[in-house]
Amino acid sequence: MLSLKKVKIESIGYVETDANEMEIKVKDKISKIILREDLTEALEGVKDFSHLFVIFWMHGISTEERKLTKVHPRGRSDMPLLGVFATRSPDRPNPIGLTLVELLKIEKNILTVRGLDALNGTPILDLKPFDSWDVAKNANVPDWWRKLEIEHRGSAA
Amino acid sequence: MLSLKKVKIESIGYVETDANEMEIKVKDKISKIILREDLTEALEGVKDFSHLFVIFWMHGISTEERKLTKVHPRGRSDMPLLGVFATRSPDRPNPIGLTLVELLKIEKNILTVRGLDALNGTPILDLKPFDSWDVAKNANVPDWWRKLEIEHRGSAA
Repeated sequence: MLSLKKVKIESIGYVETDANEMEIKVKDKISKIILREDLTEALEGVKDFSHLFVIFWMHGISTEERKLTKVHPRGRSDMPLLGVFATRSPDRPNPIGLTLVELLKIEKNILTVRGLDALNGTPILDLKPFDSWDVAKNANVPDWWRKLEIEHRGSAA
Repeated sequence: MLSLKKVKIESIGYVETDANEMEIKVKDKISKIILREDLTEALEGVKDFSHLFVIFWMHGISTEERKLTKVHPRGRSDMPLLGVFATRSPDRPNPIGLTLVELLKIEKNILTVRGLDALNGTPILDLKPFDSWDVAKNANVPDWWRKLEIEHRGSAA
């Protein structure tokens, strides 16, 4: 088995938001991404995309939480006990977050985005432009997932 | 600035494919993901999703390539010189790959997927279920991006 213990991952920036843990789950919340100043020129051309994937490191997750292999989605005991890879739980072997955001503005090394569900100070690992090739039409999800989504958003969209 | 030099990232598995570097770019290529056996139960429930995001580590990228801030998309000099975050180039500060794949089958710790553009032996960092919340309707991309896509796929879809 390959080991990646020696991989050097450094943040490329961090999240700035005044939203707390509950508030960042609201999809239209606006946050800032403060990119490292030495990477400012790596943003050239990003403004021409309307949406980006943000990949971040959920630094609040403990070593113990990373060892969990099964969870109840959103900690709800009325939901089935599932493998972590069937969920978006932050408790996973590598607590990497992935969120699609709307890009509102770029000023020098600072991006203003809508919809980033990451806490203040969260280290950013990568930014990627979004395009339709990242879309699966007619994707299937399980009933428990759809149920949570309807409760959370008020629609099954 | 936050530093992540001490973050411990370990692969959760690796890619198995006989496709070479050119062949893996073909969208309907079938590959296997060999998950670590100790993580097999973390797959419970994954089979009920039709599509997954695969997050992987592009281990062939050198330290020098990680320092690049600008690239020509796909190395083509007829394309504009752009910041790496405006592209999907593997040359980026953290060479993390993100691909949406179709899940065909799971047997024990082995997933068979369609559309994974990762080389044989590529370390996998995470798997996440795909859902419509990862979709931006009417997303904008720049003209150069659309041009490449039409050339590559034969359509602007």
